[in-house]
Amino acid sequence: MHGLHLTADLRGCPPAAPLMTDPEALRRHCLQAVRTAGLQAVGELFYRFASPGGVTGVVLLAESHLAVHTWPEIGGATLDVYVCNLHGDNRGRAADLLAQLEAGFGATQALHQRLERGTA
Amino acid sequence: MHGLHLTADLRGCPPAAPLMTDPEALRRHCLQAVRTAGLQAVGELFYRFASPGGVTGVVLLAESHLAVHTWPEIGGATLDVYVCNLHGDNRGRAADLLAQLEAGFGATQALHQRLERGTA
Repeated sequence: MHGLHLTADLRGCPPAAPLMTDPEALRRHCLQAVRTAGLQAVGELFYRFASPGGVTGVVLLAESHLAVHTWPEIGGATLDVYVCNLHGDNRGRAADLLAQLEAGFGATQALHQRLERGTA
Repeated sequence: MHGLHLTADLRGCPPAAPLMTDPEALRRHCLQAVRTAGLQAVGELFYRFASPGGVTGVVLLAESHLAVHTWPEIGGATLDVYVCNLHGDNRGRAADLLAQLEAGFGATQALHQRLERGTA
């Protein structure tokens, strides 16, 4: 269960971008990012809020999870990547996954934070 | 999108407890905790790994999400609660939700961490 949890809280995302309001576009983006990072998806769930149209999505990974929430009304999104070291050190893959996810949003500001997980 | 993200990384959880290996037991526990904390679930997804039988689960909330991963083979679990301040200050509800979730696991050790989210 030891692993790395990375977050990115984004502002200045173009609110009309499909990722901000279209759960299918966000799903494709997340699953492509998981594949590119060399991680393994085992399930996924995306939900669109009726008003004001933001999307919440999660992908369950063999190595833990990712989560995305969008707020098109303020051009904001939050990203979470928690990747445990299941079969070796996955820190590089966690960073790759976050970078892939973030690149799609075109944010002008980002707050990045990190937690070491599972060291209790 | 501003809110509070709380994590608890647990050790010393009895590995034979239903929450550690039974996705339906974990689902009921999570949804009850969400209701008790006064938050609103909008979707949920639980997955059991074939070997060694850990469970991953997420509940999407109107106010963001919770995520749980269990590792019965080491008596461990990790909990995430991210609750944004959708209709007022939900910090108390975030803490309540984490406490409710954690109480079910009977851990002997816990590492708690917190992030302020969405301030980019």
